[in-house]
Amino acid sequence: MADGGGLEEQAAAAAEAARELREAAAGMAARRAAEEDALRRRAAALDGDVRRLQGSLASLDPATLDKVEEDLERARAAILDGDVAGLLPSKGSGKFLKKFLGPVNVRVARKEDKLKVKDEYNNYRDRAAYIFLLFPSTLLLLRWWVWDGCLPALAVQVYQAWLLFLYTSFALRENVLLVNGSDIRPWWIYHHYLAMLMALVSLTWEIKGQPDCSSKQRGVQLFLRWAIMQGIAMHLQNRYQRQRLRTRIALGKAKRMDVVAGETAGVEGQLLLLYPVLFVLQGFEAYVGVLLLQTAWHGLTSEWQVVVCGILLVVMAVGNFVNTVETLALKLRFKAKMKRTRNRPDQSQGQGGPNRPHQN
Amino acid sequence: MADGGGLEEQAAAAAEAARELREAAAGMAARRAAEEDALRRRAAALDGDVRRLQGSLASLDPATLDKVEEDLERARAAILDGDVAGLLPSKGSGKFLKKFLGPVNVRVARKEDKLKVKDEYNNYRDRAAYIFLLFPSTLLLLRWWVWDGCLPALAVQVYQAWLLFLYTSFALRENVLLVNGSDIRPWWIYHHYLAMLMALVSLTWEIKGQPDCSSKQRGVQLFLRWAIMQGIAMHLQNRYQRQRLRTRIALGKAKRMDVVAGETAGVEGQLLLLYPVLFVLQGFEAYVGVLLLQTAWHGLTSEWQVVVCGILLVVMAVGNFVNTVETLALKLRFKAKMKRTRNRPDQSQGQGGPNRPHQN
Repeated sequence: MADGGGLEEQAAAAAEAARELREAAAGMAARRAAEEDALRRRAAALDGDVRRLQGSLASLDPATLDKVEEDLERARAAILDGDVAGLLPSKGSGKFLKKFLGPVNVRVARKEDKLKVKDEYNNYRDRAAYIFLLFPSTLLLLRWWVWDGCLPALAVQVYQAWLLFLYTSFALRENVLLVNGSDIRPWWIYHHYLAMLMALVSLTWEIKGQPDCSSKQRGVQLFLRWAIMQGIAMHLQNRYQRQRLRTRIALGKAKRMDVVAGETAGVEGQLLLLYPVLFVLQGFEAYVGVLLLQTAWHGLTSEWQVVVCGILLVVMAVGNFVNTVETLALKLRFKAKMKRTRNRPDQSQGQGGPNRPHQN
Repeated sequence: MADGGGLEEQAAAAAEAARELREAAAGMAARRAAEEDALRRRAAALDGDVRRLQGSLASLDPATLDKVEEDLERARAAILDGDVAGLLPSKGSGKFLKKFLGPVNVRVARKEDKLKVKDEYNNYRDRAAYIFLLFPSTLLLLRWWVWDGCLPALAVQVYQAWLLFLYTSFALRENVLLVNGSDIRPWWIYHHYLAMLMALVSLTWEIKGQPDCSSKQRGVQLFLRWAIMQGIAMHLQNRYQRQRLRTRIALGKAKRMDVVAGETAGVEGQLLLLYPVLFVLQGFEAYVGVLLLQTAWHGLTSEWQVVVCGILLVVMAVGNFVNTVETLALKLRFKAKMKRTRNRPDQSQGQGGPNRPHQN
């Protein structure tokens, strides 16, 4: 009670200071809103102008086209890569994020933070690729070495649960990147939704045991082998992608939030190694799907999960294939254009329009 | 080619305008950072003062105490409820959010948006409570009416998958609220992690069919009945909680981000209806858990899922009980204090310290 008076005064002073601080903060917030509004209007108008101009390039002759395109490219880079991007209306979170998170704004305001998010996503993909390679490999090795040809249900289910978590987090993170201006192809996100569904369905799939489990577990084994190949492909993709992003940031042409979620990169080598691997992988994915469907067709199994997983695998394989081919086509077109530009504009061929390869 | 020159000029102008806009936005961002820093330092210092003062109340006599406490309460309200809160260092997203989302800041800057997030969370809980009531009820009715005593595996698995999604989204949303300054009791979030695990495990649990499925599906049936009771309890909680939040916002005493995720509310009625229902529910939860463990103990089933679900149910029941009792105790203490304050300070009894009931 000795310092009761002191405390009383201090508390009153704190209450007064808090009131003042609240007013100062509210004042700052109001001032900012006004200031921001003015810039926001400028940004929206400019963004509209650039889009309009990009839409009306068809009528230009090649010589003018390259110059105009370069200017517009520079304008877009200034709009999207700097602090201006934060002023443009947000795309909104999309249904998937809203379902899981509620109406929270996951848009990153500062440029450095955006890079951090993108970088963390790349690191996450890297780490996931290792597990993607090691987890199923270990299961298959142990099956052969320790488990006497028979995978224990729990081990497989832990793997399936991990897949479900992984694909959910991929889908969430890619939606966050999308909100932050990434040009990721929608298919790669849909692909992760389908993969989530497959992981969920596979969890309900009873893993049969002895006797004769090597034939009963045929589907699971095929699936694990496909996963190993997927792990290898993810590694290759990640490598190429980093390289490509680094090159493009260096060239100053990239919106740094680009995620080439899947099968793209901008270097020569990938034509020789990455794409063949991807196509083989997609073929194998479809093959596993068809095998599963055949099993069901011949009445060897009555579980609906087999049919659903079979269909999902085939759909994913076809979608992946189509999108990879489209990406490759864009890339080749872009390369042709680059070459043309370097050799001076003397061709009469048409132009790909505002569809840039870094859309993927 | 007619307006090629016009386009060229327009593109050049756009590039120049974009450059200027980028500089303006960067300048604004820099000015803001400096301005914010100053307020941020003031806010941090004041926050520290208030905390220190709140920690040294023990030595005060009751008469001074109430006055000092009121001042500090007012100071805290000004700090936490206004635009000042956005200036204080963020709690950071926590591991769970980071795992799923990456390093994104889910902190909501503006006061109105915070209210929106909180409000949406309440609405989400409301909608979930309906499904929580209707889904298992429908399953049990159809079982009795259409399915001849035998639940089809797919229907139950869809329900389990929904539970997994629901608990994941609850856990994510509550973590978002936590980052935004909610005082939700950590247990209710842990509880949702455990519930996620249980939903996941139950998905791998084979739902046995004919013959004799009514005895084989005993566990599932018990679980569905418990879920119905849970749905009723969620409805009661939501009702009380909204009422309580409304009252407290009206009194100006609430940090609006409070989530009384579970079993608290500030009105008389709940002592008569809500708490008895909650205790019965928790008892039934533990009972279902023990029944599952007994089934495993007596060798009636060899599935590990039964044991894990049994343990999880018992742990959740005990945790819920302990936290509900603690909340109730805080609430009664608060009520006693309110009464004392109203009757003028003539007691010599000690004080509950800075632990407010709206901590829950």
